[in-house]
Amino acid sequence: MVKFADRIQPCDNGLSDIFAYANDPALISFAAGYPNNHLFPQNELQTAFNASLTDSASLQYSSAAGLKSLRAKIAAHISDTKRTFNADQILLTQGAQQGLDLTAKLLVNPGDGVVVEAPTYLGALSAFDAYQPTYYEVSLQDDGMDLSVLQKTLMTHSVKFIYTIPDFQNPTGSTLSLAKRHALLQLAERYDVIILEDSPYRDLRFSGDSLPSLASLDTTDHVISLGSFSKILSPGLRLGWLVAAPQFLQPLTELKLGNDVQSSTLVMNAIDQYLTEHDINTHIAKMNRAYVVKMNTMLNALDRYLPATVSFTKPTGGFFIYLTLPAEIDANQLLKQVILPEAKVAYVPSGSLFPVSHQANGIRLNFTNLDNDTIESGVKRLGKILTAVLRQPKYAKL
Amino acid sequence: MVKFADRIQPCDNGLSDIFAYANDPALISFAAGYPNNHLFPQNELQTAFNASLTDSASLQYSSAAGLKSLRAKIAAHISDTKRTFNADQILLTQGAQQGLDLTAKLLVNPGDGVVVEAPTYLGALSAFDAYQPTYYEVSLQDDGMDLSVLQKTLMTHSVKFIYTIPDFQNPTGSTLSLAKRHALLQLAERYDVIILEDSPYRDLRFSGDSLPSLASLDTTDHVISLGSFSKILSPGLRLGWLVAAPQFLQPLTELKLGNDVQSSTLVMNAIDQYLTEHDINTHIAKMNRAYVVKMNTMLNALDRYLPATVSFTKPTGGFFIYLTLPAEIDANQLLKQVILPEAKVAYVPSGSLFPVSHQANGIRLNFTNLDNDTIESGVKRLGKILTAVLRQPKYAKL
Repeated sequence: MVKFADRIQPCDNGLSDIFAYANDPALISFAAGYPNNHLFPQNELQTAFNASLTDSASLQYSSAAGLKSLRAKIAAHISDTKRTFNADQILLTQGAQQGLDLTAKLLVNPGDGVVVEAPTYLGALSAFDAYQPTYYEVSLQDDGMDLSVLQKTLMTHSVKFIYTIPDFQNPTGSTLSLAKRHALLQLAERYDVIILEDSPYRDLRFSGDSLPSLASLDTTDHVISLGSFSKILSPGLRLGWLVAAPQFLQPLTELKLGNDVQSSTLVMNAIDQYLTEHDINTHIAKMNRAYVVKMNTMLNALDRYLPATVSFTKPTGGFFIYLTLPAEIDANQLLKQVILPEAKVAYVPSGSLFPVSHQANGIRLNFTNLDNDTIESGVKRLGKILTAVLRQPKYAKL
Repeated sequence: MVKFADRIQPCDNGLSDIFAYANDPALISFAAGYPNNHLFPQNELQTAFNASLTDSASLQYSSAAGLKSLRAKIAAHISDTKRTFNADQILLTQGAQQGLDLTAKLLVNPGDGVVVEAPTYLGALSAFDAYQPTYYEVSLQDDGMDLSVLQKTLMTHSVKFIYTIPDFQNPTGSTLSLAKRHALLQLAERYDVIILEDSPYRDLRFSGDSLPSLASLDTTDHVISLGSFSKILSPGLRLGWLVAAPQFLQPLTELKLGNDVQSSTLVMNAIDQYLTEHDINTHIAKMNRAYVVKMNTMLNALDRYLPATVSFTKPTGGFFIYLTLPAEIDANQLLKQVILPEAKVAYVPSGSLFPVSHQANGIRLNFTNLDNDTIESGVKRLGKILTAVLRQPKYAKL
């Protein structure tokens, strides 16, 4: 049998058990991170694809960097009072996910340090793992990473980049405060470390004012920033973007060529067409009005049904709420042995979201792709079984 | 300045000079490998995208492996009298290019041996380079790789995979004979080495009978095989496929998840819809009728205008014809210094297509995306200047 490369490791992220129940009509799944099917601008996209397909060039190769007029529109969308971006600072990618792969590919030799928030996005770890980094976890507070822990890490270890989801973090929903954004940039500059900013949920703010992105505050070329149409338009199109200074963008574009030549000309043309005809911010505002109701339905139900020993985050946007169980509980074992078979509720257990400590007592819940009644019923079922379980000392061993 | 990973090397593939002339209306470019814009089934694809966009599921996430009904149709398309494939043996990818990246990612540690045909496809080298292989070149004969050279390499070096384009090879147009297909598989089995079969041009046969693919002849799970809709339907859609045994397909699918989560649900649904409504073989036959005329136009013009010291291949399909100049000529220097500025003709020079020997006296010409008159004029200009150049001893130093 041919030997695989060292980067290939057997993986068990605790999600395969959920698939065994996927076809059970009684299952209520809070596990996936899907936008709501009913909120896609389906007719508008149909019109845009139709228009794009009147030009045969949409079916031809185009360029690795991606359609320039679309990059210009993205640049305008991400510009703010702090900084104006332009098309030449942007590379189009297959969702933000490809930006994670390309950035790690650009920077990481086996053993190089990568700082991640703890917990963090599972898909980022699966992108980074291929380059065999040494992970350092930095715990999260209500206003983002604990920067004293970060500084200690940067002082004592060689780190290539700091991976952060500053807006409505996956899985906790927390947002990095403005003060911490400035402090984080100062640390990156002082220790000459890249910040990889991943912000697919940035526009999904339900209250308060948007904070400037790390990219817009960066004056020393220390930020590579990722965005995506997946959460604000459609994940089925697979289009995202990467913003970086030229010294990074040029080799990242070469890596994109090697990965998959370029993104789909048709998809790029159709999204460009959609953005010409429609104000995406109007669409985003409509989504946010629906999502905030779902989030509040979930928060109210958690308040009502969860036992007092389980705490949960209260985000102001995004896709997720994060529950913390008593420290001795393993949410993955609990899911497999009790919650899936008895309560027919699914969630993402936290163990695989902490690449070093594997803290197992966390639960990620998604609220965007279920109707309000289902959210209420699912949380009720989850709360009931957690209440029962946490009363019984034997579950402390799960 | 943050240090890049060791895999990032400065690259000069000799193609950047062509871009300086790209906007010159007098330029005739045989450099790109584009299918013909006029041959896309544009209306049929428009109808297919329209139909797919009546279902909001086309805009949602689906699966890393890709749409099962499309995988089943691909399996039927690639099945032959030797072997019947099924959907579960297939992973959908971003063009065949992503299959090159994923396979190297699965198998190659820095320094591991990779055998390539000499010359080979530049994009494959740019995919493989990221995993820092040691390349071994195997020279090409009219009927494919020189297997005695290959055997010597396998006897004396540790090799992870043999990369081959068996049908209408890029850049030479040569096709691996049936006898050599069997012999190659025997070598792969004997030395327990993977064959990476890359066959995007397979269906573009202008005469003779199709030979069984290496995948269809493989009885010992030694072949990973790549195909693509890019050359038979549209490269702007970015959809290809990878065929492999389960022990490879499962980790390759995990790598695909980390690379970009999945291919576009919409694009997969629309191609599936197109294949339901239309016989792609009828479309392919129509393309082949147009391409064979273009190829013969080019071959006839080469016969007429090239000096006798320049030889060229005579393919029976595909996209390319390969010219061999006298050994002392550097086709890249010649392109930059004489042919682009004076004759306004572009081609791909061979230096970067040989990763070890950098043999510089070859030229790749594409014939698919130009009309017949332009092919004739371009070859005439190329022949005229090559005749002049090769008469002058000073060009021997180029």
